[in-house]
Amino acid sequence: MGQYARIASTGKPKVVIIGGGFAGLELVKSLSQADLQVILIDKQNYHTFQPLMYQVATAGVEADAIVHPFRKVFERQKNFYFRMAEVQRVDTARQLVETSIGLIRYDFLVIATGATTNYFGDAQMAQNAIAMKSIDDALSLRNTILDNFEKALQLDDEEQLNSLMDYVIVGGGATGVELAGALSELRRHVFPKDYPELDFKSMDIHLIQSGGELLKGMSKEASEKSLAFLREMGVDVMLNRRVKSYDGYTVTLDTGETLITRTLIWAAGVTGNPVPGLRPESLLRGNRLQVDEFHRVAGYDNVFALGDVAAMVTPAYPQGHPMLAQPALQQGRHLGKNLVQFLAGRPMQPFVYKDQGAMATIGRNKAVADLKLFNREIKAQGFVAWLIWMFIHLVSIVGFRNRLVVMTNWFWNYFTYDSGNRLIIGKKQENIPITQTITHKTVI
Amino acid sequence: MGQYARIASTGKPKVVIIGGGFAGLELVKSLSQADLQVILIDKQNYHTFQPLMYQVATAGVEADAIVHPFRKVFERQKNFYFRMAEVQRVDTARQLVETSIGLIRYDFLVIATGATTNYFGDAQMAQNAIAMKSIDDALSLRNTILDNFEKALQLDDEEQLNSLMDYVIVGGGATGVELAGALSELRRHVFPKDYPELDFKSMDIHLIQSGGELLKGMSKEASEKSLAFLREMGVDVMLNRRVKSYDGYTVTLDTGETLITRTLIWAAGVTGNPVPGLRPESLLRGNRLQVDEFHRVAGYDNVFALGDVAAMVTPAYPQGHPMLAQPALQQGRHLGKNLVQFLAGRPMQPFVYKDQGAMATIGRNKAVADLKLFNREIKAQGFVAWLIWMFIHLVSIVGFRNRLVVMTNWFWNYFTYDSGNRLIIGKKQENIPITQTITHKTVI
Repeated sequence: MGQYARIASTGKPKVVIIGGGFAGLELVKSLSQADLQVILIDKQNYHTFQPLMYQVATAGVEADAIVHPFRKVFERQKNFYFRMAEVQRVDTARQLVETSIGLIRYDFLVIATGATTNYFGDAQMAQNAIAMKSIDDALSLRNTILDNFEKALQLDDEEQLNSLMDYVIVGGGATGVELAGALSELRRHVFPKDYPELDFKSMDIHLIQSGGELLKGMSKEASEKSLAFLREMGVDVMLNRRVKSYDGYTVTLDTGETLITRTLIWAAGVTGNPVPGLRPESLLRGNRLQVDEFHRVAGYDNVFALGDVAAMVTPAYPQGHPMLAQPALQQGRHLGKNLVQFLAGRPMQPFVYKDQGAMATIGRNKAVADLKLFNREIKAQGFVAWLIWMFIHLVSIVGFRNRLVVMTNWFWNYFTYDSGNRLIIGKKQENIPITQTITHKTVI
Repeated sequence: MGQYARIASTGKPKVVIIGGGFAGLELVKSLSQADLQVILIDKQNYHTFQPLMYQVATAGVEADAIVHPFRKVFERQKNFYFRMAEVQRVDTARQLVETSIGLIRYDFLVIATGATTNYFGDAQMAQNAIAMKSIDDALSLRNTILDNFEKALQLDDEEQLNSLMDYVIVGGGATGVELAGALSELRRHVFPKDYPELDFKSMDIHLIQSGGELLKGMSKEASEKSLAFLREMGVDVMLNRRVKSYDGYTVTLDTGETLITRTLIWAAGVTGNPVPGLRPESLLRGNRLQVDEFHRVAGYDNVFALGDVAAMVTPAYPQGHPMLAQPALQQGRHLGKNLVQFLAGRPMQPFVYKDQGAMATIGRNKAVADLKLFNREIKAQGFVAWLIWMFIHLVSIVGFRNRLVVMTNWFWNYFTYDSGNRLIIGKKQENIPITQTITHKTVI
């Protein structure tokens, strides 16, 4: 190392932000007028609207519609500099970030690197399961699902057929529930039209949840209604079960039960994704960086952490804020304001999280929502919650063009009972070569 | 081999079509009412609307909008069977197609496998150049272009910068002209906004054409006007030049001139892509299968060829019809009618190609069109030709949803001088590792 990345200095203090998720993006935005050089580092050239990733995976919207290039988002922000690079570590003594394109000096460092899939040390699971953390994951799942059916056409052995047509989703949080619901809708409205030669009565969708309820953290009404919706839609929700092992074909549960599938989707947990080089004492349970109420990482004055990778321990949130979009957005905005205050020599304000509730959509006209508005709690399930869900997600997507495309897709899908993106483009997950066990039938 | 792919027999004669391009798709459609089992084999699960591929490569439209899953296109056609498979060879003695999923028996076989990039035996070129024949190619080019600029930010050595910012397009046919034009529009309206740190005055676009005119086969007016348009837009059109070699960095021309680029796009020729197993005597120059006026491959009664892979030699077309969408579409439709005639015991009709002209778009408000309508030739250049080009391409795209998305994109791009899909998702072409020669500058 020792070589510097090439970023012309503007002579202003440099704030370097690692990660352009919700927190990083919101922070850049809130610094638009600040007398700083704002440098964003991300390994992708685009921001991903994670809440709709499951729709990319289930062919509901195209990948391009839920991502937005950073350079486009901030093309009018004069103090903004973007670098596509991988961060290797930070050197807080020398105030340097070591990246794949060289060293980048900072005056203020913000870690907004989010979370990564947590397989709890199960290497076999990490190898065989499909995760749901990136656009690549989502496209890989889409390709795999469609490819499975193409392959299933060549089989008549029942177990082999099940291995291709059945799906196991691990984790009953929002991602798991939304994926299970979307797959069920496809099974009902779309797949039978595409594959008249396959019998979709034999396609099973299993949703495995370790606890006794879905959507933990939401209200009892939301948990119960989402369970009822999924069961009504023919999803086999298995509560109080844990996956013991998955070899790419057989799923073994802690109860001794087994399921056969070539496609297991792992939505059972995430863990903080901090960058190397920080004091190990700053790391709390779940790999999150301990921050004070000003988002400062414990032990540092000019290093901050936001969003999923940060844990601001408060009496109300002894484990830190939930790993969701809302805390990330609010924290990003708040740190932006505080930095401006700080530069002006005024005292920074402590962060107070304003919980606005949570939502999940299960299927057509079916969602659950716990909203907190004007200090009142509003709980809704079903059609109204579904409309609210759509509205809130639509206005939250970055970029007017994306909003337009997603809305067009949704209208199209809703009124035609169709989904437009059933394309196998790019890589897919293949665990065990299938040719070993194919039963060919003579059909002359 | 020896094992059969699993396709339930309907008891009807089987027509097996290899390839779902324009010819194959049109043939399937025109057989919708035929008393046949129509089996389409393709290695992708979607049809690609090739004329807009260059727009995917230049971030103008998303890939999903110009492809359409076969199963969706024909979901209402009862006699239609699709199999995603690679064809290895055909065995005309036993009337079998050998594929990656097993043997498929046919009564009528239709080869509609199109064309493939022709590097004229230059293995180094095949390795280093980017082709323009598939969605994968187009996405790879898009990723490479965007990635190049991200890397260019780290360089100050002029030659290294040029290698990343300059583009060489080989081939002055429609694909080359359209790509050069689209890149030029991006250079003018989009890239400078995205990369204010780069100087786009130093971005060169070279278009190399072996002959003395662009758009060979179109009218003199179209050739001249497209040349004028491109030069006006700052494209360096180099006529009467051939590329001698390209090592991934230096392009050497037959004149001895050299150009530096890491991105050479090869649009200089295609060659027929027939399946192995047919009589070698049936192959004409350019790897096309010789067919009679009923599309029958020379030497066979029940093997047909359509589109780019077929050469129907007639006095008016001594080399076969041009390798374009129109002959493929017309041939597919005609063979469909003929097969129905044949099954009804009626004589087949000879094919007569109806030339409807050709078009190419160069940029914003700039296109050239030679149209043949009602036995009259209409030549247009500029804005009117551009409107015609857009209209014809829009109505030709398969699927109402795709039409809607492409139109939305076009309106958006036109009125905002923007293009929405500047995302690096998936693989990119990397010839020579760049890190060897990067010049780092200290910028503390």
